[in-house]
Amino acid sequence: MGREVWFSEWQTDDVKLSLRVKAVLWEEKTPYQELLVVDTDAYGRVLILDGAIQTTERDEFVYHEMIAHVPLSIHPRPRRVAVIGGGDGGAIREILKHPEVEEAHLVEIDERVIAASRRFFPAIAAGLDDPRVTIHVTDGIRWVAEEARDFDVIIVDSTDPVGPAENLFGEPFYRSVAAALGPDGILVAQSESPLLEPELVRRVQRGLRAVFPVVSLYTAAVATYPTGLWTFGFGSKGPRPPRPRPDVARFATRYWTPAVQEAAFVLPPMVEELTR
Amino acid sequence: MGREVWFSEWQTDDVKLSLRVKAVLWEEKTPYQELLVVDTDAYGRVLILDGAIQTTERDEFVYHEMIAHVPLSIHPRPRRVAVIGGGDGGAIREILKHPEVEEAHLVEIDERVIAASRRFFPAIAAGLDDPRVTIHVTDGIRWVAEEARDFDVIIVDSTDPVGPAENLFGEPFYRSVAAALGPDGILVAQSESPLLEPELVRRVQRGLRAVFPVVSLYTAAVATYPTGLWTFGFGSKGPRPPRPRPDVARFATRYWTPAVQEAAFVLPPMVEELTR
Repeated sequence: MGREVWFSEWQTDDVKLSLRVKAVLWEEKTPYQELLVVDTDAYGRVLILDGAIQTTERDEFVYHEMIAHVPLSIHPRPRRVAVIGGGDGGAIREILKHPEVEEAHLVEIDERVIAASRRFFPAIAAGLDDPRVTIHVTDGIRWVAEEARDFDVIIVDSTDPVGPAENLFGEPFYRSVAAALGPDGILVAQSESPLLEPELVRRVQRGLRAVFPVVSLYTAAVATYPTGLWTFGFGSKGPRPPRPRPDVARFATRYWTPAVQEAAFVLPPMVEELTR
Repeated sequence: MGREVWFSEWQTDDVKLSLRVKAVLWEEKTPYQELLVVDTDAYGRVLILDGAIQTTERDEFVYHEMIAHVPLSIHPRPRRVAVIGGGDGGAIREILKHPEVEEAHLVEIDERVIAASRRFFPAIAAGLDDPRVTIHVTDGIRWVAEEARDFDVIIVDSTDPVGPAENLFGEPFYRSVAAALGPDGILVAQSESPLLEPELVRRVQRGLRAVFPVVSLYTAAVATYPTGLWTFGFGSKGPRPPRPRPDVARFATRYWTPAVQEAAFVLPPMVEELTR
């Protein structure tokens, strides 16, 4: 037992996850959201936006590996990649492990998230200074509509569908993303917990189906996200999941492997029914 | 928001999961443990032993389907099956879906768990009155050592490795189980969270390897168990995972399918390293 300081995430009105806090490292009201960084006994440092856990030192690799390596290993030659949201830099770090990548664009609306990650999560932000990376501090919806062209992969690494991320979950935005993708382009978007947010999962799938000829869903086990089971919507103009291309680069990972990727597309009926 | 009555599970000294409580339905100190039944907004009725969530109406199917159908679909002809622990009856209910099963034995040390499940979780306890079922209210370690012979599948559906279940996690007990199994016999044992209890997962795997020629591990996503990712140790005298036999019966499930079963044996490196 330690000191009785706790951070509690309200996962719903009726479920809370509480982590014992060693120290509150940073607290800030940005123009977009409440930003909090705490150090915890169980998960190390934790980045929290508007009360919701975004990433922790101890389990961040699961989410970041799975949001990045799945589309990048399925696209035949992912040279130009963009991340919408994802200001912590974790998705960018994983993207840069693919030697085909020539440009990685981070499009984060809240510069303070990037600053907090650089300061408190240097291992997660590690890729942000890579010469292949361009950071755009701007609204992702506007950037995709007005500036993005000929991308191979666009990853939507957003917060929950309340607040600044609300319009990142739906057909109009996916249509705009499709226009910004080249002919083999792939979109992957985090789409919440199938047990707690089944309607959101359905909405993402429906939105993707309205826009992309190839649509699917995969899951990953993220300990600090509500229910521990997370979904990702997958939309593609051509390349089909789940198998990585045979020449995909080898690099060190702790969750993703080509076989884990294939298994992640095998859905229990309780999840599969949300894709119809 | 509702009334501010909460049940909190201490998942570790530093992590708590809290569920808003609609009603406390039952509370009892049995000869073996503290038994609590609450009705919650998020997960329906919840069975709690010594402060640890055992089963909830809303997500019980994941654990019970995965602990039962994996060994029963891999064994070539599972006629005699035993469950050690599992007094709620959920594993028995799933076992009875396999038409090959002639005898299903429930070996629960605490009769009060069975009584509470019959009263408060009738859909989970539904199989307990089936004519194929025999209930033994006794110590599972003693029963396996002294009474069990020629079983096809033995399932260890225990509480955490503290209190009455402590000796169910280790090589001496697995050796006794192996002696109680027929030539194609299979043991499956729940073995906790790989993120929170990696040493326990390793201990189960080592214990199984000391006894069985075929040893493996599979996972399932159980929302109300710590970290949401759960492991099961698999030991067999012959039949090899992960594929179900081609003639396995078809029945309604919400998590398990033959394909989900195969995917459940594909391990992320962070879990796979615990099997070596």
